[in-house]
Amino acid sequence: MVDAIEITTKNKVHILEKLLGHISKKGYGLVYTQFRVESENTAFLYVELENVVDIDCLISELRGFSGVMEVVKFFPTDEIWGKRIIIIGTGIQVSQVVLGAITEADRHNIRGERISVDTLPLAGEKKLTEAVRAVGCLPRVGCLVLAGSLMGGSIVDAIDEIKNKYGVKVISLNMVGSVRDHADLVVTDPVQAGVMAVMSIAKTAKFDIDRVDEVL
Amino acid sequence: MVDAIEITTKNKVHILEKLLGHISKKGYGLVYTQFRVESENTAFLYVELENVVDIDCLISELRGFSGVMEVVKFFPTDEIWGKRIIIIGTGIQVSQVVLGAITEADRHNIRGERISVDTLPLAGEKKLTEAVRAVGCLPRVGCLVLAGSLMGGSIVDAIDEIKNKYGVKVISLNMVGSVRDHADLVVTDPVQAGVMAVMSIAKTAKFDIDRVDEVL
Repeated sequence: MVDAIEITTKNKVHILEKLLGHISKKGYGLVYTQFRVESENTAFLYVELENVVDIDCLISELRGFSGVMEVVKFFPTDEIWGKRIIIIGTGIQVSQVVLGAITEADRHNIRGERISVDTLPLAGEKKLTEAVRAVGCLPRVGCLVLAGSLMGGSIVDAIDEIKNKYGVKVISLNMVGSVRDHADLVVTDPVQAGVMAVMSIAKTAKFDIDRVDEVL
Repeated sequence: MVDAIEITTKNKVHILEKLLGHISKKGYGLVYTQFRVESENTAFLYVELENVVDIDCLISELRGFSGVMEVVKFFPTDEIWGKRIIIIGTGIQVSQVVLGAITEADRHNIRGERISVDTLPLAGEKKLTEAVRAVGCLPRVGCLVLAGSLMGGSIVDAIDEIKNKYGVKVISLNMVGSVRDHADLVVTDPVQAGVMAVMSIAKTAKFDIDRVDEVL
């Protein structure tokens, strides 16, 4: 079981290490942490922990730290946003892939799955390469869909990187360029691509992307 | 200027505090941090820093820590994913709002903006309340669009919370229930709602959501 809390602090130097140090001294396993500075006087620290014996006790201890303004319980990100499909590419094509992905995710989420669909409309080899690489830094990503008419060059190195280093599956629309050769699956219809992306990660679906070896 | 790095570590207890401690001892300002455990032997620490004098020196120092497997430079999340629109609700309505949002974001991203559009198809008062509250924990969110036919009850408390605590703007479709009364803007057409959500946060657009006091 995972517990999640958010701590609002006065953005003080070293407060992050102090709070995390206190948590790990208690022997609780850190699963996920996010710290962001909101303004000059406010920062948010979100923490997910495993094996917590007494979360209310921990919350009350953290409230005692100098600089801490508020500590509240949250549901873990995995239970809220779940697994993620990322769709990147040209606006019109992204919007068609997302139509398939959201409609399919809706059907699975109704049955107890939790899948969210995130998108970035973007063009240009350099920008796309940076964005594909950055997918690796995102938590809980199951599948990336590349939606466009022409993609290749350095984008394929980024595809290989996120496949090998982070285990992200990649679906490409049937387009011009070398991206097709590096994707796990090539799909011609964008709505179908979105549906299959969701099917590939839903535990409520029976679809193994690695068993498909044809262009659809 | 913000520098971003990702550190791959052998998921050791206390490694996070040690690495963050080293970084803050150098006087570099932590803007954003994300730590996630990938498997029993691997965790990723992504860090964004301000005022870094010599990033290559820092990277080489971090590589010297026991348990660190790899340190690589990344582009900051703000430059890749930019500001975020979040759309939550019923699949068919989310997919129409997202059509407007992606198409409009595409137009702004071409002109140098960076806006991504993230979605979660979901139904039910309790689940929606949890998801709306959790929007507050997400970084870089500008606007939340609630897309459905009936929303009220505890969802409005979550709306008030993310508006007041995190400064997120909320757009609601014109639907049954009290959510309409707590949103910053009510829009009847879902495509229009998506377009206006993007316009409200794009620096390349001239639209002040607070100046609209009618249902569209």
